[in-house]
Amino acid sequence: MAILPMNTPNQPSNNQYQLPERVKIVEVGPRDGLQSEVAISLNDKISLVNMLSHTGLSMIESGSFVSPKWIPQMANSGELFRRIKRTKGVTYSALTPNLIGLNAAIAANVDEIAIFGSASESFSRKNINCSITDSLRQFSPVVKQALAAGLPVRGYISCTLGCPYEGYISINKVAKVAQQLQQMGCYQISLGDTVGVGTPEATKAMINAVSQYVSVDKLAVHFHDTYGQALANIYAALQLGVSVIDSAVAGLGGCPYAQGASGNVASEDVVYMLNGLGIESGVDLSELIAVGNFISERLKRSNGSKVAQAYPAAQALFQSLI
Amino acid sequence: MAILPMNTPNQPSNNQYQLPERVKIVEVGPRDGLQSEVAISLNDKISLVNMLSHTGLSMIESGSFVSPKWIPQMANSGELFRRIKRTKGVTYSALTPNLIGLNAAIAANVDEIAIFGSASESFSRKNINCSITDSLRQFSPVVKQALAAGLPVRGYISCTLGCPYEGYISINKVAKVAQQLQQMGCYQISLGDTVGVGTPEATKAMINAVSQYVSVDKLAVHFHDTYGQALANIYAALQLGVSVIDSAVAGLGGCPYAQGASGNVASEDVVYMLNGLGIESGVDLSELIAVGNFISERLKRSNGSKVAQAYPAAQALFQSLI
Repeated sequence: MAILPMNTPNQPSNNQYQLPERVKIVEVGPRDGLQSEVAISLNDKISLVNMLSHTGLSMIESGSFVSPKWIPQMANSGELFRRIKRTKGVTYSALTPNLIGLNAAIAANVDEIAIFGSASESFSRKNINCSITDSLRQFSPVVKQALAAGLPVRGYISCTLGCPYEGYISINKVAKVAQQLQQMGCYQISLGDTVGVGTPEATKAMINAVSQYVSVDKLAVHFHDTYGQALANIYAALQLGVSVIDSAVAGLGGCPYAQGASGNVASEDVVYMLNGLGIESGVDLSELIAVGNFISERLKRSNGSKVAQAYPAAQALFQSLI
Repeated sequence: MAILPMNTPNQPSNNQYQLPERVKIVEVGPRDGLQSEVAISLNDKISLVNMLSHTGLSMIESGSFVSPKWIPQMANSGELFRRIKRTKGVTYSALTPNLIGLNAAIAANVDEIAIFGSASESFSRKNINCSITDSLRQFSPVVKQALAAGLPVRGYISCTLGCPYEGYISINKVAKVAQQLQQMGCYQISLGDTVGVGTPEATKAMINAVSQYVSVDKLAVHFHDTYGQALANIYAALQLGVSVIDSAVAGLGGCPYAQGASGNVASEDVVYMLNGLGIESGVDLSELIAVGNFISERLKRSNGSKVAQAYPAAQALFQSLI
């Protein structure tokens, strides 16, 4: 049964923008999501990645090779990568902040890596204990060795629309960090609204500033839904031609700066919007909802996707019509 | 303390659209919200309306003069209107489906009334037990007498982006009903996505169709957040120049067609977005959050506004910076 029987078919529009025809979703639930949740068993994590692999997603950020002192939830990423059942066409990526992490990732046969820079000095110092400039200097050999080993590298930038310590972040600062990550060798820059404070026009202004240095087809957006703005911001980004969206199944994760608040934007809600916009993502929404329900149950938390919450009742209603 | 210290200031943009400078929020929590919640005491309802009156809102839909057999939660609207403390500059409106309701509303000194049409035949028949044509015929004398009594009349249209019984709804049908309501004497048409299934481009297509008959400055949008799409849809509507938004404090209400799903879009989340977009609403966000917390507590439900959920932690963090 289609989940979207009620949506108005696409109409000819007089828009001045062109939405992308296809969007790639980078599923970050197993990494960015789970690192802010209570720890669950390795078997459950493996099940999560394996289940996600069958939803039509083409990229799953599955773990993080960081010191377990920092993020104990990610301690067993090596074992996870060795035990997941890889599906053809799916890229399994991991965060590797340094050479030790990179080597562990290579040993675990990771397909792609990511490094994590910041547009905020204070956030950089508090999060990775060094200035932005120093962090980029430290990433440089990581990127070099990863590329030499044949691994594509994705660059994250945190705090692109605000910082929990500094507040306002200059969009020119974001643009400069993006430029440096690209020059270093990152094939794609994911612009993160780490604290979820951004709104649509601020999002557009930031992306426009970044695109002075890095072309839009090399940009991704990464929104947290802390203030409920994520989908509106994604729609704004789509209007500028951004075609890669990070999201987490069931809206996994939280906000360390706002206890009890929402985490990553839910993949289900993103896919629902893309379906409604007539944008192809390749993801099966029903399958994705099932995975979100599985992991929410294991985490003993409510499902953070509104689509997932509405789905059973909507399905029952429409089945009665068929 | 400002709630939005982190937002990027407005930047010059190359947009092809012009967002409105000012938006009027029609707070529908006490009516559309509470009619789908458990019943609370009249005193609590009065407190809710009185508290909302001090947030800067200029219009509060406070009750409904319908048969208590239909909606028992609204049974004491007359007494509510008699006992609320009216604030200068605030319009207190009510739903009146028929002449009996209108006369009760006039007796209770209501400032403005609203009638409730539908773009879906099935929804009209199930909800008010008659066809769209018959419902409009029945509304006609209500509007006439209301106008004669000096009361402005607002027209709602339900199911503008989908119907729980029919699925797809023709946007031309929506446009025609809007035209008829305007011709009847409604000064404003509120386009409701009753089941929350709409997405941004469908929203734009529907508004564009309606604006062939009713100019955009006479339109309002009314979104439910069942599928999490409300703010993205509102942003789409703003791009077309719509400048009146219905919303409910704390996201009051639910969806009778999806048990446990979200209700009206939360006024707090709308105001947060408007603030970020540099659009004036006149509403004090901190005050609004306090009201939302009050009513959520009385209803023993969690606050449906993400902004309200994130606010205490964000406030604590930023106070430590000041």
